[in-house]
Amino acid sequence: MKIYRESIRLHKNIKGKLELKPRVDIKNNLDLSLVYTPGVAGPCKLIAEKPDRVYDLTSKANTIMVVSDGSRVLGLGNIGELAVLPVLEGKAVIFKLFADINAIPISLNVKEPDEIINTITAIAPSFSGVNLEDIEKPKCFIIESELQKKLDIPVFHDDQHGTAIAVLAALLNSLKIIGKKISDIRIVILGAGAAGISVAKYAYTAGCKNIIVCDSKGIIHQGRSDLDPQKKEILRITNREGLEGGFENALKGADVVIGLSTIPNLLKPAHIKLMGKTPVVFALTNPIPEITPIKAKKAGAKIVATGRSDFPNQINNSLVFPGIFRGALDVRASQINMEMKMAAVKALSSSVPENALSEEFIIPSMMDKNIVFRIACEVAKTAVQTGVARLRKTPKYSFD
Amino acid sequence: MKIYRESIRLHKNIKGKLELKPRVDIKNNLDLSLVYTPGVAGPCKLIAEKPDRVYDLTSKANTIMVVSDGSRVLGLGNIGELAVLPVLEGKAVIFKLFADINAIPISLNVKEPDEIINTITAIAPSFSGVNLEDIEKPKCFIIESELQKKLDIPVFHDDQHGTAIAVLAALLNSLKIIGKKISDIRIVILGAGAAGISVAKYAYTAGCKNIIVCDSKGIIHQGRSDLDPQKKEILRITNREGLEGGFENALKGADVVIGLSTIPNLLKPAHIKLMGKTPVVFALTNPIPEITPIKAKKAGAKIVATGRSDFPNQINNSLVFPGIFRGALDVRASQINMEMKMAAVKALSSSVPENALSEEFIIPSMMDKNIVFRIACEVAKTAVQTGVARLRKTPKYSFD
Repeated sequence: MKIYRESIRLHKNIKGKLELKPRVDIKNNLDLSLVYTPGVAGPCKLIAEKPDRVYDLTSKANTIMVVSDGSRVLGLGNIGELAVLPVLEGKAVIFKLFADINAIPISLNVKEPDEIINTITAIAPSFSGVNLEDIEKPKCFIIESELQKKLDIPVFHDDQHGTAIAVLAALLNSLKIIGKKISDIRIVILGAGAAGISVAKYAYTAGCKNIIVCDSKGIIHQGRSDLDPQKKEILRITNREGLEGGFENALKGADVVIGLSTIPNLLKPAHIKLMGKTPVVFALTNPIPEITPIKAKKAGAKIVATGRSDFPNQINNSLVFPGIFRGALDVRASQINMEMKMAAVKALSSSVPENALSEEFIIPSMMDKNIVFRIACEVAKTAVQTGVARLRKTPKYSFD
Repeated sequence: MKIYRESIRLHKNIKGKLELKPRVDIKNNLDLSLVYTPGVAGPCKLIAEKPDRVYDLTSKANTIMVVSDGSRVLGLGNIGELAVLPVLEGKAVIFKLFADINAIPISLNVKEPDEIINTITAIAPSFSGVNLEDIEKPKCFIIESELQKKLDIPVFHDDQHGTAIAVLAALLNSLKIIGKKISDIRIVILGAGAAGISVAKYAYTAGCKNIIVCDSKGIIHQGRSDLDPQKKEILRITNREGLEGGFENALKGADVVIGLSTIPNLLKPAHIKLMGKTPVVFALTNPIPEITPIKAKKAGAKIVATGRSDFPNQINNSLVFPGIFRGALDVRASQINMEMKMAAVKALSSSVPENALSEEFIIPSMMDKNIVFRIACEVAKTAVQTGVARLRKTPKYSFD
């Protein structure tokens, strides 16, 4: 694909998307003796006496790790710890440019959940947050929850939460347009990976009572003997009617379909026609969605979103992770709890003013730099309110 | 101390000496799609097919870790993994400003050698080198040698080698001035820590046959029952006469004394007077040396060096580590072998031209930015010659 070739060319030209820049200069021996030995013993001793001073005297307060074992990279699968590096570096570029956070790429050549947990725990001291990235399920779930128990800094698996927060924000805005309540609708989710499972949980938390998740074998229901623990668990909050069969069965009369299947062109016009009135179609597989917006609209979809920047309504986790971490770091949160995640949903959805909302504008653009600070502001406030912030004062964020 | 207070003030003002800077900008959706998804899948796929391309397409080629468990920080001892951070960041500042290397501070809250080795191995994929820092002995020795066996990137414990290389370079130049041969002299080393042990090994490798190492109990000799394995091992190349007693006994008639004791003012004028003709005194404990240059000179020392920038002849490992890693990274060396270390000694000592050599100028200034590239040049060449370089061509270094 052309965009792959162009990206390779860009990466070859710059030879590494990141570099570490000093915030001090060394012009003479005095500078050297303050930045390094012997003067540096001063800050070292102070931190040894009062560990909290590490936040004033080092880069820790504004540094997180973006960490992966390369086991589930984009739609490319288990391509390993070297091949995931361009993703980790790309994410670090976004963290810095959008939220002024130092995000260090850490790539792991251990693959067992225990080893991953131990390694991340061992290197945690210089970081104030952990962004887990591109780790396959089910281990991504275990790693996130075990790490969060062990560490007193936020642990956030972006492939689950970043995506789900962006989807839910876009969904809430779509419902405003079509005049439906989340408690009344049926949502069909295509794909039971980390993102699909997570979107189901978030939609449930937001009040949806009728969610059907489908995997490659069709609807996930109690009668299936081939379900892994995560799929079994998700049945506690989905498919209460006990629907069976292919995903087409779920689509009959559905209000919303959310494609996270990684299967290009999975949805045909006939599928959209099975849905209820004013169908909402999120076809989020990249780079080729489950159905193109043109086809979906032609088949009757009222609102269509994709993961792509060349169509309206791009749903992308890049809208979420910079602001979430900015807010969490600013109040030294020990975790990013569900309340903070839901605050991010609200901040993101409300950043499109009601009078600007339209079928082609249900979610703001990545290029709107206000979004980060709107999200950060709500996340920081909620962290303080829910008692997981070490600082009680939220910074003053400025945005339009 | 004043310099501690000044350093604390500097650290408070800048709030972290480091930040991660993108080398690309994101101005629009196209930029975003090349730096991150979906375009970034291009470089990812290419690396998955040809792992060596990771060096062209990511920051790995120019990134190392500066890693410590905080168990032996400066002269402050085991102050822990938070308190060591200002040192690691200071070192990273020097790596970048002097050698354009990205050095990521990694601080460990595991303390057992096995855990440290496993952790560093697990996070190695995104790095091209490991600078071990401020780790107490004896584990520093085990960790370095075991890690170098496991990893195909250089592992370098700077407290051993950086110091020893700078000391040996200064010593060779001192001998030129006083007209003695290294094979004829007696060297007394005060301190049997990582640096002291390492200086003894380097002096032996350079041809010295009469080395006496002393610890807090006096001369290290065969008759002592309190020696740890490292001290026992160093006896194979030191104290062949079987000298016993306090360090004063060793100083009688000695040509060179090298203070690495961490004990301020350990050496009295009377000690210097015990030495042979034209005594060479390296009093390297920081910030207060074993003896001040003025006192040492008054007691008869011909040449005096310290670790301090406010006296002539500052011996500092900062002269060494930037150039060593620059050279190793430039040819993608898999290790920094003894030949490369000795090439660094030669490059450093010869960077003071013979006609400029004097009692007050045995080693160049840290502020001479040529040093890095002189060392890098010799280290890279030697890596190629000794077969540990993955690239066969050394870059063209420019220096005066």
